[in-house]
Amino acid sequence: MDGEIGSLQRLFYPRSIAVIGASSDPGKIGGRPIDFLKRSGFEGRIVPVNPKAATVQGLPAFRSIGDAGQVDLAICAVPGKFAEQVVDECVAASVGALVMFSSGFAELGDEGREIQERMAAKARAGGMRMVGPNCMGVATMSTGMVATFHPAFAKVETLPRDGRIALISQSGAFGGLCVQMANNRGIGISHMVTTGNEGDVDVSDALAELAQDPNVDVILIYLEGCRNGPGLIRALEIARANRKPVVAVKLGRTEVGAEAAQSHTAALAGSDAVFDAMFRQFGVYRARNIEEFLDIGCALSIGGLPANNRIAIVTPSGGVGILMADEAEERGLDVAPLPETVQRRFKELIPFAGVRNPLDVTAQVVSDLTLFEQALELVLTETDFGSVVCFLGAATNDPNHGKVLLESWDRVRAAHPDRLMIAPGMHPPEVARGLEAKGTYAPIEPTYGPRAVAAAWYFTQSFANAVDRPAVTAGSQLPKGQLNEIEAMDVLGAAGLPVITERLAKTAEEAVTAAREIGFPVVMKLLSPDILHKSDIGGVKLGLRDEAAVHAAFAAIMEAGATVADARIDGCVVAPMVSGDGVETILGVTIDPTFGPVVMFGLGGVLVEAMGDVSFRVAPVDHMQARAMIDEIRARKVLDGVRGAPPSDLGALADAIVALSVFAAAHADQLVSIEANPVLVRPDGQGAIALDAVVVTK
Amino acid sequence: MDGEIGSLQRLFYPRSIAVIGASSDPGKIGGRPIDFLKRSGFEGRIVPVNPKAATVQGLPAFRSIGDAGQVDLAICAVPGKFAEQVVDECVAASVGALVMFSSGFAELGDEGREIQERMAAKARAGGMRMVGPNCMGVATMSTGMVATFHPAFAKVETLPRDGRIALISQSGAFGGLCVQMANNRGIGISHMVTTGNEGDVDVSDALAELAQDPNVDVILIYLEGCRNGPGLIRALEIARANRKPVVAVKLGRTEVGAEAAQSHTAALAGSDAVFDAMFRQFGVYRARNIEEFLDIGCALSIGGLPANNRIAIVTPSGGVGILMADEAEERGLDVAPLPETVQRRFKELIPFAGVRNPLDVTAQVVSDLTLFEQALELVLTETDFGSVVCFLGAATNDPNHGKVLLESWDRVRAAHPDRLMIAPGMHPPEVARGLEAKGTYAPIEPTYGPRAVAAAWYFTQSFANAVDRPAVTAGSQLPKGQLNEIEAMDVLGAAGLPVITERLAKTAEEAVTAAREIGFPVVMKLLSPDILHKSDIGGVKLGLRDEAAVHAAFAAIMEAGATVADARIDGCVVAPMVSGDGVETILGVTIDPTFGPVVMFGLGGVLVEAMGDVSFRVAPVDHMQARAMIDEIRARKVLDGVRGAPPSDLGALADAIVALSVFAAAHADQLVSIEANPVLVRPDGQGAIALDAVVVTK
Repeated sequence: MDGEIGSLQRLFYPRSIAVIGASSDPGKIGGRPIDFLKRSGFEGRIVPVNPKAATVQGLPAFRSIGDAGQVDLAICAVPGKFAEQVVDECVAASVGALVMFSSGFAELGDEGREIQERMAAKARAGGMRMVGPNCMGVATMSTGMVATFHPAFAKVETLPRDGRIALISQSGAFGGLCVQMANNRGIGISHMVTTGNEGDVDVSDALAELAQDPNVDVILIYLEGCRNGPGLIRALEIARANRKPVVAVKLGRTEVGAEAAQSHTAALAGSDAVFDAMFRQFGVYRARNIEEFLDIGCALSIGGLPANNRIAIVTPSGGVGILMADEAEERGLDVAPLPETVQRRFKELIPFAGVRNPLDVTAQVVSDLTLFEQALELVLTETDFGSVVCFLGAATNDPNHGKVLLESWDRVRAAHPDRLMIAPGMHPPEVARGLEAKGTYAPIEPTYGPRAVAAAWYFTQSFANAVDRPAVTAGSQLPKGQLNEIEAMDVLGAAGLPVITERLAKTAEEAVTAAREIGFPVVMKLLSPDILHKSDIGGVKLGLRDEAAVHAAFAAIMEAGATVADARIDGCVVAPMVSGDGVETILGVTIDPTFGPVVMFGLGGVLVEAMGDVSFRVAPVDHMQARAMIDEIRARKVLDGVRGAPPSDLGALADAIVALSVFAAAHADQLVSIEANPVLVRPDGQGAIALDAVVVTK
Repeated sequence: MDGEIGSLQRLFYPRSIAVIGASSDPGKIGGRPIDFLKRSGFEGRIVPVNPKAATVQGLPAFRSIGDAGQVDLAICAVPGKFAEQVVDECVAASVGALVMFSSGFAELGDEGREIQERMAAKARAGGMRMVGPNCMGVATMSTGMVATFHPAFAKVETLPRDGRIALISQSGAFGGLCVQMANNRGIGISHMVTTGNEGDVDVSDALAELAQDPNVDVILIYLEGCRNGPGLIRALEIARANRKPVVAVKLGRTEVGAEAAQSHTAALAGSDAVFDAMFRQFGVYRARNIEEFLDIGCALSIGGLPANNRIAIVTPSGGVGILMADEAEERGLDVAPLPETVQRRFKELIPFAGVRNPLDVTAQVVSDLTLFEQALELVLTETDFGSVVCFLGAATNDPNHGKVLLESWDRVRAAHPDRLMIAPGMHPPEVARGLEAKGTYAPIEPTYGPRAVAAAWYFTQSFANAVDRPAVTAGSQLPKGQLNEIEAMDVLGAAGLPVITERLAKTAEEAVTAAREIGFPVVMKLLSPDILHKSDIGGVKLGLRDEAAVHAAFAAIMEAGATVADARIDGCVVAPMVSGDGVETILGVTIDPTFGPVVMFGLGGVLVEAMGDVSFRVAPVDHMQARAMIDEIRARKVLDGVRGAPPSDLGALADAIVALSVFAAAHADQLVSIEANPVLVRPDGQGAIALDAVVVTK
């Protein structure tokens, strides 16, 4: 399903559109796109194909697609049983892209899936891209290209405005609804794509293409599932490289939702926690609902990104200012105190104003509107804060006040074009649009100001820290099944994970030799694939300080092993007795059905397990992502040293995560899971070391 | 500031309103309320008071309030320096309530505060209530009583609709803004009260009064701080007893916000964590921002409360349905599978529909609008689910479809009046208002449906579980300062907290006697107020199994104590050696500046401390609230038993919390803090016991 980049040009910018199954009835699925296209400003050729009519809705009709001359984009609006024939004919006619409304394929079961796959294969073999089947189509608003039957495009008066936000949705209903809701809020879109069953073109293909489209600034994606995780990651990397923020709604945050999503879509759901981590890893902002989806998309398309996370808040209401400060702080922005100079000069203007940040212009602004401009000028000239949120209250409700404010806003914007400025307020729609046309997002809800700044700051960081994923070369063959403890530690040690030295001893003499090489004191453990709880039967001996103790321990361990009927005994593990300060952590690897090898990090101990306090990333990860994983757990503070403990060696821990992730990626085909537990993270400068590990291969 | 209930009747329902400092200029603060009242439908007497004019804005004016006949409510719109005289005159004229716009009091410092307190005292002594100073006034929409100068009430066309939501705000700007935003969304209000400096009437007074007003269904409160925590709790208890949901915005969720709030308002901020816990304890729903504040308030005023937490979701878009299911699940609702019968019968209607829950009416609903009604009827007849959220998509955008849908909705509602029904959708405003008039909340954003159901379910529970707070009688005198370990355990033991038996021994013989009574093995510890880390100097001996060991330990401990210069040595503590299974927890008490004695619960251990994973309640608490505290910590699962550990005795733990909370409330005046740590919670049926405690008194 990974198309070549650029191969969707004829889909998004066709010069001619054929409708196969064209209907004279503008209410029918085969009639709607023609009806829409006639009134949407599309300047290309509209080509109805209908063997039974000479004209359709006033346009000359063709008997077949083969007769219709060059066609960039064809819409298939015939019943499902005729769809495969349409594919054949379109390929023969060198159509560039086919949008298939027809349904009755993978969504109905295996038989339909087979036909769908055959159609997709034929299309690809013939150099044609196919969107759908079972989709609601595609639209490019800058050209009026509305190859869709969704009612959102039915009327000229309510036709979506041309904007710079592309919307890609697996669901046609969801996509259309978002277009309508965006329209309702005065938000324009550049494209809508609904991918339906994703026989050929999937969300990743559309994303990769639109991320390189100069008409697109922001991309909104709606996902129910994902069949091709690596493809999605590749597309996200293209978007990041092109500095196009991606905002996502993904279903299945909860177990109930995940279950419903799984049954609703044919795609594998995978683990939502992994999906969520992947979003953070590749710089996707995940929205909770449609409101946030559109709001953040809109804000990003208007305002640019802040240079730093310091935010100034200007407000005519102390209370609303603090509400915004709470929101900003909670979302990781820095509501830093304004410099003394700013505070002093503003106190001169309004003696009783709050000036630390938020800057409170007070109700006095009602009698002196210039206070807004004075406050903004002070803040923007005297600080390098990356963003300013200025709540305008109901000031713009009075047309005269609104005019004055907009003029002053223009002056401020012109003087400080590099700042992110947001102006929430009870604006009449025309004022909001006026502000937005000049690069100032203007929501009603004041806290959406800091929320939007936080989202923009997220992308500033994401674009600056583009992941430099470590190189991975195919790994060597691993032993099959569950590796024994020594094999596991050997393999991970070879992969660059710091591990303790463990030796296998089959005799007491070998054990003594091993202990001497390792250095006393040592630990000895029974090595047997058949005995799980070795300490319960006396199969573990700690703190062995000399050769005599090792001798005795070997005998005792072998004896203990012999008490278990039918257990294979492979000998004894001799390992150093590790002591000293440190925090016990767990590093793990699992294979996600969607994204493949995934690395996991958490603290050791029952409490963390009970809370599921772990973080994930798709392997491999670089050092920066490994640090992000460490920072993400709720118990993060423990690694800073609590109750007088020293701070942990986070660099070494991150290196261990990177090494494990590279190993996991290199051996993804062979692995079932890895758990290095515990990994002791020592005080800063002293490293981290895995004390035990389980590696399971296929 | 606690007025008697009922004493604000003349404030909210005056038959006559005087404006002192009445202005002929309808743009001035002293002119606006007259201008507003003339056009707001107020049928009572409007009485301008102005010594220099015979008429004001066409109404006969009076020289002084004393000449004006009976006045229920007076507005003071004169400069601050004349305000105190106005209070005197109003008291003399038997005015019922005075709304003081004038500013320049507590908000400017101590001098202003003094005058403000004097005015409040005079008012109270004279039987008059005072709102403000420094407030924006009061309004009752059912009578057009707009005693305010906020521009939200300036125009007849945009006058707030009469509704059943009361809005109480410490900030005038915030209150007025909320009224405007509510108006913008078509939400009506019953009252607006802005309390300003709260010289006399505070949020609690207004809340207690409006909670008993038959015109009020829901109360929204905006708090920057609170001077009188017990008063607020009393008012919340009245609201709960009257089944009036209270929704709050409170500033200071973050440290930055709390700091800003502290400097913005004269009120003590207290701890936000305690405030938040108090909200949960007394059934207040805390909103994050103005959008949620108004949305939840609106939903509650329209829809009633659900009988249980089972929610059915009906949707024409599978994706939106799952998005709503995710939201419902995450907010603690039960998206339970629909009964087999419902699923089967719906499958007969639409073979390929998702029917488990959400129930997906699919795009087929476009051609057959009755599917909505059929789905709803099935669900409501065949289940007892407390609520149904039915997303209507853009169906009501077509006027004909809208009409059909509203008619079918009426039928369904009439047949099932006891259910909570919410119908999100892209409704034209008149459709939304139509649905809402018939008891169906109709937001645009689909996830606001389950969010509103969750809020309503919160109140169902809160009203059912009204707190029966344990009786508290004034406690006996405690020793002053930091109690020694034995005193602390004695005091808490007497309070009903299960504690281990500890004995003081001043000689080896006393130690042996004590050990014999306690039973071997015992622990012995040095008792000294001057030595903190007793084990470091050898002042703690564990596992003493016989008399000889106790003898030896006493000598060793005394010797260890003697090595510390100038330390007072009070003897030796003899205590049982506690062993066996259990989870270590911490119970604590602090005195909050706003709410007084507060009880705290958390697990023991460094990890919990690092994460601040503790819960709070205002003391005293009953058993149910204690259980809620236990359930609230993130590490809650540990108490269920992880890794094969048995479940803990939660009943005994809750009893211990209750006992401690009652003790704290009884001794609030004397206490500084208590920490019982560890409190060992044993497996179910085996109780909980405090092993050590620190009690600090004043």
